[in-house]
Amino acid sequence: MQLNVSTDIALRTLIYLGRKNELATIQEIADAFDISKAHLMKIVMTLVANNLLISERGRNGGVRLALDAGDISVGVVVRLMENSLALVVCMKDDATKETCPLLPKCRLKGVFVKAQDAFFATLDQNSLADIL
Amino acid sequence: MQLNVSTDIALRTLIYLGRKNELATIQEIADAFDISKAHLMKIVMTLVANNLLISERGRNGGVRLALDAGDISVGVVVRLMENSLALVVCMKDDATKETCPLLPKCRLKGVFVKAQDAFFATLDQNSLADIL
Repeated sequence: MQLNVSTDIALRTLIYLGRKNELATIQEIADAFDISKAHLMKIVMTLVANNLLISERGRNGGVRLALDAGDISVGVVVRLMENSLALVVCMKDDATKETCPLLPKCRLKGVFVKAQDAFFATLDQNSLADIL
Repeated sequence: MQLNVSTDIALRTLIYLGRKNELATIQEIADAFDISKAHLMKIVMTLVANNLLISERGRNGGVRLALDAGDISVGVVVRLMENSLALVVCMKDDATKETCPLLPKCRLKGVFVKAQDAFFATLDQNSLADIL
């Protein structure tokens, strides 16, 4: 049971910027966490495209939080960064009886959906400000 | 956000045996789910070693549930089969400031621990009997 590395890096980037409370360059953040600048760039682009970060161009450019830390929900970030929330194969949208012969009579999926809802409900109660 | 394939197969094996309510061979279960017999064997051995399945030897041998379906908790099976519950790197036991420079001041880990507890609390409320 693991989240994507990209989710982890996205959260750490937000925490880094929330603590710094001013612009930081991609290079600076990549150095801080000892991660590839190319990988970080991709994650930052997703966060910018989803209005969580603002990117400022130019010689003194960099990225900063687009919102107050109290308005950035941990749950929103995790949902955004995880490519798939299908814990087991039958939770995939295209799951059929060919995916698993227990379908459609199996109730496992419903239990996992409820458990995942409880997971995200907890994350949704926490903002970036809560974890700085 | 995904569980191990082994967790998925372990749960499906238990559901299969719970529905059948008698012995089944490894080959039969592997065929039912179109999975490798070797992979299934490893999973079954874990379930036998943890008193969830009983293995009967001999020509008419096979495996069956070791407990009533109502006494097999979905949460117990998931915890057993997941090698690691570290959602993010800082949840690993050996995480230090070298793992992530935000440690030890970061509260992200605590939020994830709470969310994961909520996830398992839901699974613990469900037995195999509930999902048959």
